[in-house]
Formats: sequence, structure tokens, C-alpha cells
Amino acid sequence: MAARRPLAVSGTRFTVRYHLSGTEAEAREAAEAICYEQTVEVPDAVVPAGDIREHILGRVEQFGPLASGSFEAAISFAVEIAGRELPQLLNVLYGNISIKPGVRLARLELPAGAFSWLKGPRFGAAGLRERLGAPSRPLLCAPLKPMGLSPTELADLAYQFALGGVDIIKDDHGLADQPFCPFQERVPRCADAAARANQETGGRCLYAPNVTAQAGATVSRSLFAKRAGAGGLLISPGLTGWDTLREIADDDRIGLPILSHPALLGSFVTDRRNGISHGALFGQFPRLAGADATIFPSFGGRFSFTRADCCSIAESTGEPMAHFRPIFPVPGGGISLDRLPELCELYGSEVIFLVGGALRQGSDLIESCRTFLRRVADPTIGRLS
Amino acid sequence: MAARRPLAVSGTRFTVRYHLSGTEAEAREAAEAICYEQTVEVPDAVVPAGDIREHILGRVEQFGPLASGSFEAAISFAVEIAGRELPQLLNVLYGNISIKPGVRLARLELPAGAFSWLKGPRFGAAGLRERLGAPSRPLLCAPLKPMGLSPTELADLAYQFALGGVDIIKDDHGLADQPFCPFQERVPRCADAAARANQETGGRCLYAPNVTAQAGATVSRSLFAKRAGAGGLLISPGLTGWDTLREIADDDRIGLPILSHPALLGSFVTDRRNGISHGALFGQFPRLAGADATIFPSFGGRFSFTRADCCSIAESTGEPMAHFRPIFPVPGGGISLDRLPELCELYGSEVIFLVGGALRQGSDLIESCRTFLRRVADPTIGRLS
Repeated sequence: MAARRPLAVSGTRFTVRYHLSGTEAEAREAAEAICYEQTVEVPDAVVPAGDIREHILGRVEQFGPLASGSFEAAISFAVEIAGRELPQLLNVLYGNISIKPGVRLARLELPAGAFSWLKGPRFGAAGLRERLGAPSRPLLCAPLKPMGLSPTELADLAYQFALGGVDIIKDDHGLADQPFCPFQERVPRCADAAARANQETGGRCLYAPNVTAQAGATVSRSLFAKRAGAGGLLISPGLTGWDTLREIADDDRIGLPILSHPALLGSFVTDRRNGISHGALFGQFPRLAGADATIFPSFGGRFSFTRADCCSIAESTGEPMAHFRPIFPVPGGGISLDRLPELCELYGSEVIFLVGGALRQGSDLIESCRTFLRRVADPTIGRLS
Repeated sequence: MAARRPLAVSGTRFTVRYHLSGTEAEAREAAEAICYEQTVEVPDAVVPAGDIREHILGRVEQFGPLASGSFEAAISFAVEIAGRELPQLLNVLYGNISIKPGVRLARLELPAGAFSWLKGPRFGAAGLRERLGAPSRPLLCAPLKPMGLSPTELADLAYQFALGGVDIIKDDHGLADQPFCPFQERVPRCADAAARANQETGGRCLYAPNVTAQAGATVSRSLFAKRAGAGGLLISPGLTGWDTLREIADDDRIGLPILSHPALLGSFVTDRRNGISHGALFGQFPRLAGADATIFPSFGGRFSFTRADCCSIAESTGEPMAHFRPIFPVPGGGISLDRLPELCELYGSEVIFLVGGALRQGSDLIESCRTFLRRVADPTIGRLS
């Protein structure tokens, strides 16, 4: 081939840590395979000499054993191969290699300034606290459900949650735009209900409707929701694609805090030899995409995340990560009053508890919310009762 | 609660088959859990009596053992809970339940007329054959790579592929809009190269650029590609979300055949107790979303799909599925000349072979393509050579 024009690359690289199963020889081979599979995607013999080999190929920077018996490889990539687009960044991180068993994406390591084209969370945990007027305590989020209730019935629930002191009321992630509960009717009713309660209590409860929708419709629903008085938004990036979350987070016309929901993402974490680590998927990815809070099923509930999994998620929401603001972990899926001591011990106060069933089981919803908030403020209250 | 207005549901239901691990009692419990988790998402005690219980809840229609030792449950859902939106349909199929280990989505069964709001493939296998002027033989697709080549170099490759008789030339799925290979420069050059070769050969080779892009940009890139002379499009729904594929398939201004790429989807299939079956993920989902051809890694290559996995994908692309047209299976990832007999035996002639490395290894690319096409027409040629 003729002389090639110089590659437009800066030399800046970012690092991805992969956990690799098998013998050391197999793991070393997998690490090499990642370098090719995620970039040039051709056999070594077909990679041209020169700057493609030097810059485009992934590079194994570190390799070593893990306590678990598997291996870790730190592989660096030129920042330019992500092309200033989140879908292509995800492709570099785990596109084709998702199909190769025994490779788990454990963690991203971003140099300062890397991916400055991604704005990340607009509010982050601190910005959300400011909006809610709750500078330090754990926060409470409650979902509107079950599916099948009418907009009026859901608004009635929202009103009671807000009177009870709930900080964030969210649509159940299964409320979309069904004929029995149209988005354009539900959202104004629920937003109004929260506003009415706020006027009575002096509170700042936010209603976050679900804007997971058809491609192209998420932005228009978000704008509609904002005009109708929504104070936040809920989206399931597993259903829409991560970049749709990024799109609504970046849109200055919208400018609302965003909660990310884990629907359809479970398959990335269930098999621990493959997929993506809990911390990367539910901590780092939402920050890259611009969520301000990340919902996930907490340990001990009806799902299977362990205490360690949840701990790694909570850590990944708060640790330094280039210019990406810290966000809130939002454990849910079986949070109950009697588990608060252990939950508060793990999550501390930088947390939003997503509580569904536990608030609905008593006869007085408003009082259940107040009890929950009192107990969150001091989780030892009534521990032995 | 006060008397409720009647639910807007027709009574029409669709069925999803799940494979469940564990003992029979565990599997039965999991089947019940799916009915709640994917719909009302509250404990039974909180489900209101009446039509929510009757219509919204999932319903176990069949339950029985599988030869593998696990169990199969056929669960029906009201068509209305998908709300005429693919993201919400995906949520019903496998949203929260993706987080519960031991549940694999095996297969959808759609009654005639269900989801008529999804148009499905615009061309399908038959329409694509018509465009290509190739009524019955297996087709050949070749990728432009490696990443790092300039638009001019990629166009030169495209020219040679087209002269060699390749039916579809696609961008490598990692070619996005990088500074060293901008989309707006690459696409016209490669489209022109294919057109120039077609003029020389009288062929109808299509160039399908990768339009996987930021949310909102996929449509504009597709329109740009069409104006530049692209004859098809490549998209990775795992990176963009499945509904972005649907969006470009439905857009009458675009109207080009679409190839779906499996990037980031591997984690759904690798652990066979969880996730989504190969047939549903790579056969049924692309048809729901409107792809005309579905790329996947074939057995015996550098990935881990088995012959049976590939067979189930091929079957799922062609079997009757409501109003959704049959599409092409596109096995790739290690297709070579000496494997053609076994590949042709499995896939028959309703197939597009995606061949990368095998065409690049000889010194004469054009001649390699021609040899491949001759061998595909009669895979026994030179079998023993």
C-alpha cells in the first residue's frame, strides 16, 4: 500500500481492566485477543506496519493474577478510537469481546481530561441534594405502581407519598404510554399532586416520570414532563441505549436530575466470569452517560446481588473519575424497616433508598413514609422492637 | 380505593417461553415471580382485585420439564402492556427479570396481528435478494477494515471487493466518526468506489456504512449515507438500543436494507442459564426491530457459538412470525474456504457469509473474492485439495 497520511491521534490513552478466566496462558491469550478484537479486528498478519500497529491496537499495560484464581489485564486504548461518541466508546470497552466467554470488564481508568466531550452528570449527588434541600441525610424514593392504576389513582398515591415526606417519587419503570395510563395524562396529574402536597408541607418532593420511550421520543417526553412540572426523570438505558440517557442529560432545555433504572441490564452481571462488573455497569457507566442517581437491586432482597456487589457499586458512584461528578447509589428491591441498620451501615448517608412494598403494607401510607424517614435518620430506633 | 374505570385492554395476549433452572419447585416459583416482576412489580397482597389482577398480571399458560433438566414456562401477557413501543416490549419480555439468575428468555410466540405497530423488516431476505439481483445463491459480505486506514484506503478496498463480486460491503462496526476516518469523508468515497466497480462489472454490489452513532444522529447519518450512494446500512443495536434500529428501518426517507451487528450483545447469551436464547436474540429481536439481515459469530470460528446455536438462529430468521418478514442470517467471525462444505450444509442457500480474514490472506483480493463465490456456488469444489 502507498505511503499513508499520519494518523490523527494525540497519544493519550485510557485504560480498561478486564478479568480473565482460565489458565495463565489462556488469560494472556485472551488479553492479546482483546487488543485486536476491540480495535482493528483483523489477524496480526493483516495489521499494517507503522502507526496503526503503534496507536490503534490495544496494548497490554499490566497483567497479573487475582486472588480469585483468575487474571487481570490492564489494556490501554487511544482515546481517539472512541470518536467522541458514547456508543463507540462502549464498543471499544466491550463490543465484540462481549461474545467471548471468560472476559469480564472490571473497571475503567480515565486520565484527567479524557472524554471531555462527555459532560457527565449535570447535578450529581450534591446538585440533587441542593434541589431537595436535604444537605446530609439519606434520601427516600418511592415508586408509583402497580401498572394498571389510572393516572388519577397514581396521582393520589403521589400526593400521599409527598405528604409523607418522600424526597423523590418515580414512575414504576413499566409505566410507559399504555392505553390505560397515557403518559400525557399521567405526568401532569402526578406532578400536580406532588406540587399540591409540597404547598401543604413546605417540602420539595420531586416527581420523576419514566421517559423511556421510542428512539426520538425520549427528548420530547422529557420536555413535556418538564413543562408539566416534573422535577426529575427516570430512564432505563438498557431499554433505550445508554446514549439516550446522555442525550437527555445534555439537553439544556431539559435540565432535570436523572435516575437510571437497571431493566434489561441484569445479563451483564449475572455470570461472574463474563459481562461487566457491578461497579462499572451500575456505577461508572451511569456517570459516563450523565445519570445523577443509579437504581440497582440491593443485597438481601428478591434479587441476587451480594453485599460486596452493592458495596462496589456505592464506591463507584462516589470515587474520583476524571471530571464526572459523584452520583447517588439508589438501592431498591426489598428495602424494609427492619433491614435499615445493616443498609445504613453499608451505604452511609450518601444514598437514596428506593422503597416500594415496605411503605405500602401498613394501612396509613403517609404515616409509613414518616416512620421510614425517622428510622433512616436514626436506624437504631426500634431495632429490637 | 374508589370504583375504577374499566381497563383499556382487548384481551389479546402474546406468549413468552422462559427456561428456568433449579428444582421443579424453584422453577414454578420463578414462573410465578415473572408474572409479577414483569408487570405490576408489587407483592401479591398489593395487587388490587378485579381487572388488574385479571388482565395486567402475567399468566402461566404451560409449565413442564425440558430434556436438559431445567423447566419451561409459557407465560402470556396482555398486548397492551407493551404500549406500542419496542423499549417497553423489551421491558415486558426481560426487563427486571434479567436481574434474576436462572431465567432465560427462550422464545416469543406472537399471535397473528400482534404488534402490528411494529413494521418489521422493510425488505427482508426476499427484498434484499431482489435488490442484489441474486435470486437463490448464498451471498457474500465483506468488511472494510482495519480501523486506522484512511477513507481513501478503505475506498480502495471497497473497489476491489466490488470488482471481485462481493454482494455487500460493510464498514467494520468499529468505524464510527473518528478523526482519522471521518464518516462524512469515508461514506461518499466508499460508495463511489462500489458504484465505479459496478459500472465496470455490471454488478449490483451494495455498500453499507456503519451508522451506529449518538442518539439522534443515526437518522441524519443514514440520510447522509443514502444521498452519498450507500445501498444499505449497518447498525449495532446493542450499542444504540434496539429501537434506534427500528427508527431507521421505519423511516421512509431512508428506505435502505439494514444489517444488524452483535456488538455488546454477547453477555445475553454466554451463560446458558440466564439471558436470552441465541434464536430469540439474533433471530427474533432483529425481525421485531426491522433488520433485514442479522450478523452473528458462526460456530467453529474465534467465538464460542455452537452449531446448534447457529442452527437456532438460522431457523429463527426464517420461520413464520406474525407479519414479520424472514431475514438473512449472516454468520461471520472465522468463515474460511475449507469450512464452506459444513457451513453450506447447515445454512443452505438462504445465507449471507460475512468473510473477513479469509479474503485478505492471499495476494490478490479480487481473485480471492471470485474463488470464494465459485466455491459457495458449489462448496464441494476442491474439498479434498
